[in-house]
Order: sequence, then C-alpha cells, then structure tokens
Amino acid sequence: MTRRSAVPPPVTAVLDASSRWLPARLGEVERLLREESTGRGGALGEDAGATLAAGGKRLRPLLVLLCAGAGGGDAAVRAGAAIELVHMASLVHDDVLDAAPLRRGQPTVVANSGRKRAAAVGDLLFSRAFALLAEAGDERAVTLLADASTALARGELAQRRDAFDTRISEQRYLERCRLKTAKLFACACLLGRDEEALGAFGVEIGLAFQLLDDVLDVSGPPERTGKARGTDLLDGTVTLPLIAAAEVDPGLRAVDLRALDAEGVETLCDRIVASGALERVRARALSMVESAKERLASPAFDGEQRDLLGLVADGVVQRYS
Amino acid sequence: MTRRSAVPPPVTAVLDASSRWLPARLGEVERLLREESTGRGGALGEDAGATLAAGGKRLRPLLVLLCAGAGGGDAAVRAGAAIELVHMASLVHDDVLDAAPLRRGQPTVVANSGRKRAAAVGDLLFSRAFALLAEAGDERAVTLLADASTALARGELAQRRDAFDTRISEQRYLERCRLKTAKLFACACLLGRDEEALGAFGVEIGLAFQLLDDVLDVSGPPERTGKARGTDLLDGTVTLPLIAAAEVDPGLRAVDLRALDAEGVETLCDRIVASGALERVRARALSMVESAKERLASPAFDGEQRDLLGLVADGVVQRYS
Repeated sequence: MTRRSAVPPPVTAVLDASSRWLPARLGEVERLLREESTGRGGALGEDAGATLAAGGKRLRPLLVLLCAGAGGGDAAVRAGAAIELVHMASLVHDDVLDAAPLRRGQPTVVANSGRKRAAAVGDLLFSRAFALLAEAGDERAVTLLADASTALARGELAQRRDAFDTRISEQRYLERCRLKTAKLFACACLLGRDEEALGAFGVEIGLAFQLLDDVLDVSGPPERTGKARGTDLLDGTVTLPLIAAAEVDPGLRAVDLRALDAEGVETLCDRIVASGALERVRARALSMVESAKERLASPAFDGEQRDLLGLVADGVVQRYS
Repeated sequence: MTRRSAVPPPVTAVLDASSRWLPARLGEVERLLREESTGRGGALGEDAGATLAAGGKRLRPLLVLLCAGAGGGDAAVRAGAAIELVHMASLVHDDVLDAAPLRRGQPTVVANSGRKRAAAVGDLLFSRAFALLAEAGDERAVTLLADASTALARGELAQRRDAFDTRISEQRYLERCRLKTAKLFACACLLGRDEEALGAFGVEIGLAFQLLDDVLDVSGPPERTGKARGTDLLDGTVTLPLIAAAEVDPGLRAVDLRALDAEGVETLCDRIVASGALERVRARALSMVESAKERLASPAFDGEQRDLLGLVADGVVQRYS
C-alpha cells in the first residue's frame, strides 16, 4: 500500500495513440504545475523542485483530460493540475513520515529541518490545489477534490488503525483501498466530466491499481519495482496478498509483523507466493479492469475516449513500478 | 514563533460584554467542529478528539463572527469553523514535527504510528475546512482560506529557511509574521465581512499577537506561559526580541544558536532582557493594536462591533499564554 512507489502505467502508450490535443493539454498542466511552484514567491521553487519531478507520470491529470475529452479546455487543465498537487502533497507528507527512526530498518537520513520543510511544502501544495480551483470559481471541482482529499486522509488513518493486524478482513482492506486510492482516481474522472459511469470507472481502476501495487510489494523483483520486497509488510500494512494467502495457509494469520526483520520478510513473501495468492489477486485486479472498461460501452463516450481510457485501464495492471 | 503556545486572549471578556447572539453563534461553531469530527465515520472522532480541545479559545472564529456582526448567519458560522479547522490542522502538523529526535533536548515520546496518524488527521482537518465552504458554494470564502493557508505554509517555510540565522533583518522577520500569523487573522476578519479596513485590522492584531508571543518566549515565566523560556531560540527561530537586542548588544549576532543548551538559552534570554528589547517590542505590539483599533473608527462599524473587536485587539497583547 505504499503510494510512493505507485508509478503510473505507461502514459507514453496513451499519448502515442491519441490525437494532438492530449499532449498539448498535458503540457499545459505541466506548465501550470511549474507556475504554481516558481511563479509565486519562489518558496516552492526552492523547496519542492524535486517534489514536482517525483510526482511521476501524471496519471491523475491524464484521467481528468481524457474524461473531459478534446473539448475540455482550461477547466480540465486546472483540475488536472489541482488533483496532481493534492497527490504530490500526500507524497510529501509520506516523505516526512518516512524519516521516522527505524523505518524499514534504515537509519534516518532526513534532518529535523528537512522534515519541517517537507511538512510545510505538503501543506502549501495542498492549499494551492484548492486555491487554483477556487480562483476559477469552480465550486463543483472544489467539493469533489475536498471530498477526495478527505477520503485519502481517512484511508491513511484506517491503515494506521489496522497496522500489524493480520486478521483484518478482505472487506476492510477493500474499503481502505477505496478511501486511500480509488476515490482520488474517481475524482480525477469526475473532474473531467460529471458522468456516473466515469466515477465507477475511476473507482475500479483505482482499486485495481492498488491491488497490483500490493502484489508488486510481495513479488518484486526489486530491480524492477524500485523497492525492497515486503516494504509494506515491514511497515505493518496488511494487504490482500497476505489476506488471500492466509485462506490457504491459515498459519499466516499468526505471524507477528512487528518482529519481522529483513530476512524474515523475505521468507514471508516467499510463503505468500507459494500459496498462489498473487495470481489470484492479480486475476482480481484484471477482472476489475475489465469491468471498468465495460462502463465505457455507453454511447455517452466517443471512440477515442473509449480507446484511450481503455489503454489507461490496461496500463494500471501492466506495470512493475 | 511557536504557534502552539499562542493561546488566544480572554475570549470570556468579549463574551461578557457582548449581547446574546455571540455566545449562541460561537456555540454553533463548536457544534459544527464537533460534527466534522464525530459525524463523519468516526475517523476523526477516534483520532482527533484531543486536537479539537487543543484548538484553544477559538480566537479566529470569534473574529469571523464579530466582523460578520449580529446578522452574520450560517455563512459566518461555517467560515468560523472552517478557519479553526485550518488552524487546528497546522497545530496537528506541528505536533508531528515536534516528535523529531532531539527536539528541545527531550526524547521523542510519540511512536511512529502516532505520528503517522497525526499527519493524516492534519490533512483530514485541512480537507474538511475546504469541503465545508465548498459544499455551501461559498467561492469567495474558499479563495480567502486557500490563500491564507498558502501564506501559513509559506511562512513556515520561510522560518525554516531562516533557522539559526542571527543576522536576519527586522523586515524579514515581520514578513514572516505576516505570512505565518497575520494573514490568517486577516482572513478571519474578511471571512466575516468583505471590508478593507477589517483586513488591515486583522493584519495588525495578528502581527501584534505574534510579537507578544515572541516576547513571552523570552520573558517567561514558564509557570504562566506554559513552556520553557527560549523554546523558539533552541529551535533556531530568531525573533524580534533577539533582533532588537542585537541593536544594543551587537555581540548577540555572533551567538551560535545550534550550540545552545538548556543553561545557555537561559543566559541568552537574560541577555536579551538586559538589553531592554522586550519593552521595545512590547511597545511596538501595543502601537500596532492602537493602529488596528483606529481602523474601526469608520461609520461602517456599529458601536458594539467597535467595542468588541477593540476588546479582542487589547486581549492580544494582554496575555501570558
């Protein structure tokens, strides 16, 4: 469940397949993000340059733009930038927390002043997201984004509350994914266009995205995922691969995650792999993606929209990082 | 510059002097704050009960309500709750940071999971503030609050950038206070009523508030301020008392704040006191308060408003905590 590592699917494939409006619009989102960082007193420019870059491949803005379609205009660009700012803010706040002593068994490298700066940068990015939408008078967008941000924080809280509990239910896990990941995906789609089917599409690909993220945490390989296997387990985060594995191998529920060391976590990952749980979770994610794509069958969407959103949906489960 | 300790002036005096609408409205703000915490899935209720209480005496909502006047209605109540949620979010994020190792020479007591929870609670409070205003379609309020939140975060960043620098100018210090404290006070006033004079009033009492806060950090006594003398200095935060003292005692600019220990900080505080700087800074805060009150001389304000806002202004510099 480490959102940090959740680098989005190949946006390139979508761009290659699209007509020229999409790369142009994505460029405008990028320009707006940069403007928010350097055009306003330089505070963010100095402190959050790396954050802008670390934001990944702009999957959420891409969803906004695709759902808005070729006629989306400035409102979609603004909404795309705003949702990315919220996503970045959450990454920055994760960074602050990652500096905890003993986290992932590594010594803390971020100095006190570094963490303070990061916390303020996160708050700043967060504020700018709402300012951007509010300045344009886009009430509906502010409400959508505020609700999605609330869900994101609530998902984080739920994950904290569940930490180290190997007995949480699949239902509880899915509810957490909905709050922590899927709601923001759905928000991106609805920011693009107010259409129920798009909200449902966003929820399903968001869930699939998180499921695959959780599979990759156990499967590795680290060279491709960019993080050590079992990072989430070491952090006490119980995800579907472990829950599904315990159905076959009930002894897994008795594992004390607090006592895991680097070696123990490798053994645990291997045991989850041996149970066949990863295939089952991956299949589940794939079926969510299929179901998501079916939502687009309606005549409310044009061919290009259907094709490109379909590519995004496929990309969510075809990735290593 | 520890906002944490900045407990607002005696709201009681204002309530005693007001007609009955004010306590009733403040009660509604409180109810709304509680609703936001317990009425929405309980996540905040479980995790941020203490935060609600730690929010202090609701000085910012009081400013909103007083500026809106007796006819303020629901919009003022909502805005009062929203600005307090942002203030609380910033306190919660401060808490997260206060758990840093070696901060103020004390061992870290907050566990890793505690800090994570706090970070998410802060984000949640932040989101709810914007959601509250957006749901009511109050565009102007969202813009005001987003800008004030941006300023707050930017002030925090500026403070981090200036940390341990004993040569920062008075101008730079005042700019920081404007961002970190005064802008939110001004926002409270403008949320109550769109009147330029109120914005200026808010800025001045906000600055005075911060100046007095910084005097109290050096003057103590700890039994009355509730925190050790020189807490900000130990944290590397250079404030007006030190800047003003160095004008009389230039050797102070050479003090290495990073090398301060508990004993050294007492000596430094004594040296600032001996320079007479505290009286000068206090006088400066008082003159800001007088100037703020003069803004209210316009016939745009009724007698009760003028009296009660005057009491708030006086209270800002008549306090120990």
